[in-house]
Amino acid sequence: MFIKSPLGTLKNLRLSNLFTHCLRIHTSKRNLYAGQLLLQQHATMTETQFGKLFDKIEELKPRFIERLAEAVAIPAVSGDESLRPMVVKKAEFYRAELERLGFQDIKMKELGLQPPPVENPELKLPPVVLARYGSDPAKKTVLLYGHYDVQPAALEDGWLSEPFKLVVDEEKQLMRARGVSDDTGPVQGWLNVVDAHRELGLELPVNLITCFEGMEESGSIGLDKLIADEADKYFKGVDTVCISDNYWLGTKKPVLTYGLRGCNYYQIIVEGPGADLHSGIFGGVIAEPMIDLVKVFGSLVDSQGRILIDGVNEMVAPVTEKEQGLYEKIDFTLDEMNAASGSETCLYNNKPDVLMHRWRFPSLSIHGLEGAFSSQGAKTVIPAKVVGKFSIRTVPDMESAKLDKLVIDHCNKVFQSLGSPNKCRTELIHDGNYWVSDPFNASFTAAAKATKAVYGVEPDFTREGGSIPITLTFETQLKTNVMLLPMGRGDDGAHSINEKLDLSNYFQGMKTMAAYLHYYAESETK
Amino acid sequence: MFIKSPLGTLKNLRLSNLFTHCLRIHTSKRNLYAGQLLLQQHATMTETQFGKLFDKIEELKPRFIERLAEAVAIPAVSGDESLRPMVVKKAEFYRAELERLGFQDIKMKELGLQPPPVENPELKLPPVVLARYGSDPAKKTVLLYGHYDVQPAALEDGWLSEPFKLVVDEEKQLMRARGVSDDTGPVQGWLNVVDAHRELGLELPVNLITCFEGMEESGSIGLDKLIADEADKYFKGVDTVCISDNYWLGTKKPVLTYGLRGCNYYQIIVEGPGADLHSGIFGGVIAEPMIDLVKVFGSLVDSQGRILIDGVNEMVAPVTEKEQGLYEKIDFTLDEMNAASGSETCLYNNKPDVLMHRWRFPSLSIHGLEGAFSSQGAKTVIPAKVVGKFSIRTVPDMESAKLDKLVIDHCNKVFQSLGSPNKCRTELIHDGNYWVSDPFNASFTAAAKATKAVYGVEPDFTREGGSIPITLTFETQLKTNVMLLPMGRGDDGAHSINEKLDLSNYFQGMKTMAAYLHYYAESETK
Repeated sequence: MFIKSPLGTLKNLRLSNLFTHCLRIHTSKRNLYAGQLLLQQHATMTETQFGKLFDKIEELKPRFIERLAEAVAIPAVSGDESLRPMVVKKAEFYRAELERLGFQDIKMKELGLQPPPVENPELKLPPVVLARYGSDPAKKTVLLYGHYDVQPAALEDGWLSEPFKLVVDEEKQLMRARGVSDDTGPVQGWLNVVDAHRELGLELPVNLITCFEGMEESGSIGLDKLIADEADKYFKGVDTVCISDNYWLGTKKPVLTYGLRGCNYYQIIVEGPGADLHSGIFGGVIAEPMIDLVKVFGSLVDSQGRILIDGVNEMVAPVTEKEQGLYEKIDFTLDEMNAASGSETCLYNNKPDVLMHRWRFPSLSIHGLEGAFSSQGAKTVIPAKVVGKFSIRTVPDMESAKLDKLVIDHCNKVFQSLGSPNKCRTELIHDGNYWVSDPFNASFTAAAKATKAVYGVEPDFTREGGSIPITLTFETQLKTNVMLLPMGRGDDGAHSINEKLDLSNYFQGMKTMAAYLHYYAESETK
Repeated sequence: MFIKSPLGTLKNLRLSNLFTHCLRIHTSKRNLYAGQLLLQQHATMTETQFGKLFDKIEELKPRFIERLAEAVAIPAVSGDESLRPMVVKKAEFYRAELERLGFQDIKMKELGLQPPPVENPELKLPPVVLARYGSDPAKKTVLLYGHYDVQPAALEDGWLSEPFKLVVDEEKQLMRARGVSDDTGPVQGWLNVVDAHRELGLELPVNLITCFEGMEESGSIGLDKLIADEADKYFKGVDTVCISDNYWLGTKKPVLTYGLRGCNYYQIIVEGPGADLHSGIFGGVIAEPMIDLVKVFGSLVDSQGRILIDGVNEMVAPVTEKEQGLYEKIDFTLDEMNAASGSETCLYNNKPDVLMHRWRFPSLSIHGLEGAFSSQGAKTVIPAKVVGKFSIRTVPDMESAKLDKLVIDHCNKVFQSLGSPNKCRTELIHDGNYWVSDPFNASFTAAAKATKAVYGVEPDFTREGGSIPITLTFETQLKTNVMLLPMGRGDDGAHSINEKLDLSNYFQGMKTMAAYLHYYAESETK
């Protein structure tokens, strides 16, 4: 049943060789990244049948919106320990949904205690929800990965409405709530696809296995081990993995994604006084941890986004001339970029530079810090302990462990140069490797056909600046290929305020998912 | 009735001349700053009478603790707009208390709307509570200033108990709650002194006027104008102003305070994207406001506390040889400093340097920032707008307006050098000038006697690193002198977590206040 992915040989190649490799595989095809030719094969499910399925999805609109509203109402913020019970509640919500839809062998896989740094040393990780739909050996098996946890959100951050209450904006034809695009909408989408089949009395063309986790927004802690443990057990026989947890590049053109940056997230802890102090009494006589932290922060990156840590840029695979040409062809404009960011503060003024710095160069972002005064007003406090947060997006051929060493050594060196009596240490909070795949395997080909069937256009084949570290784990542990099939748009505001999902993306997205399962079932790889 | 304070001529002197001036006034006295001789004059109130008063204060212990518990239970955080109704509630609490104690002519002085920057443009300032106790033209009139607002506080910041619930720690003989030392305890102390006199049927030796404000922790907005407006009305005939809103230098020796640093509080606003962004999608292609902010922050001060803004240190009055000698005599050790900070992160290793950098040199503290990720966990956000907060403690002869210009020009210059497409502006949130007084006037002399009567020791005459900007306004507008009579200790943790007031400081403090009123009444200045 297992067909070795071309990526089995690809994943160890240097990025500079990858494009050459892809070109070699597909030398007989023109329009390399558009994939027009692929649609002409294997159309055994008639358009009428798709029509019925698509009509049913449209017909069930109220139900599908209502279900999503119920799901996003649970504030399943994995990064906030106090909300851990809500994360577990959302797992239970999905268990009930899966049962109702006829999934079998449902398992709430416990992952044990959350490792430090944690406030509560007894904090349990939320469960991974495993379930099967069908186990016909004659069918291919698709593993659907999604996550039910979400980013933090609070009305006072500037949301137009309560972030954990779904609002349907009829005028803008979109839904707004935390998680609606990242990743509750897509998770719900897969369940709705099953629902639509059942309502039609239509058999699913593949076996499904769900793997829904609750720690994706906090580094997918514990999932690597679970996948390794279940590779030959629950996940045995998986032919491909489909992940819907990213976004279109822009707002108009559907995409399929074959590459991701990794992410190493660090914290710098600077400690001085035993408790916060009054700047009137201690200002000028005490070494302030906050002053040390901003010095270390300031040494990491410049205002043009250049990483200033010695040795980091040297690890990045060089850009080949051939590769350079690929970025010109992607349907993307600087205007879209500016619209998505809501500003004209882009660091580059041409498409290839923007796409390359998003996809194939590393970046360093400073996210914030714990422990300092962070409210409105003017508090005259000297914070006693500050914890600075920053992360580096990684790309081929950066080695994660080597990067950690460079980063930590750099921070230590800069701090030591300050001559401060405070204490400073830098540590990795979590990491996830980058991933690059072959965009012409059976799974991508099926998804390209599905996209064409629903949207009437070929998808762009893109990479992503964000990371879904688990992608690489699935590929390595299950020895199968992985595909990213995004549902939402580039301006959905994942991780930001007023996260949204366009109604059309939710419903066309489900149709694409459904069509993908059928095209993949019909492909020659089994 | 009005006796011109020596400070009338003093306040325009340069700091370098001040000590010489003080020395000239008191050339006939030895032990210049200890004031031993002062106690031998005007002891018309017998020790027995003080004994009765002090005994009554001891007897009323349960009542006085209960009152303080009621007061601190109201979370009157002036810096948090959402808590403004609580600030007003606390003003009402004090109105009721003053009425109950027989104060007359009670006025809740409205100060209008809070000026920008505010979230709610209709936000009203909390009222100033004015009240009189007695109006005998044969008596001197003492204006008691205090503030009923407090600093922010939240249990999760690390408090041992709910910050707005008074806890009496019998083992450590202290009370813990936000505001207990700064400044609700001292305000309550003055009312308790009146209560004790009434319970004894003992006439107050002076007329009292209260001026209790609710915006001290947020720059005393509106109070300057009120004092100017009322100088010849409500405050007409005031002989001296007594402020109990600071702390002993250490933990053992009572002090009287004759100097304060000023405080100019600034914010740096850096804006870029229209909303917070995901660092996976935008990291490396967007100019990050947080990166620009840490660069500007990093340019302000070094880890040794040296201000790096051109022209600022040049404004500071030079240290004279005579002045240098004064700091050696103060009862203070580096161990106390370390105990108060809970660390050994002091920037200086000898007493004169510590005291000078606390009292007579400026300092720059970075307090924190709004808009960035500030919770626990690892959020991969690029904050769209960050507002950095820092302040400079000012000393003679720094000119506030000139300082503002130097600071703002510096921040603009540094930001421009970054070449960032973001927008940055720096603005003053609030300022308050420094103040230095004559420590040998009638008010200080009375307070020194009172301290000796209660504690059995001469107080140290100190300055403070913190600012009570209104000190200078009272002095200028009422053309009278002002004295600072602290109740709490240097380690009370004002503005920090677990703010406390030792029970002995509360009760000995009230006795000192009471004795001060009697000694001042008997002084020759009227």
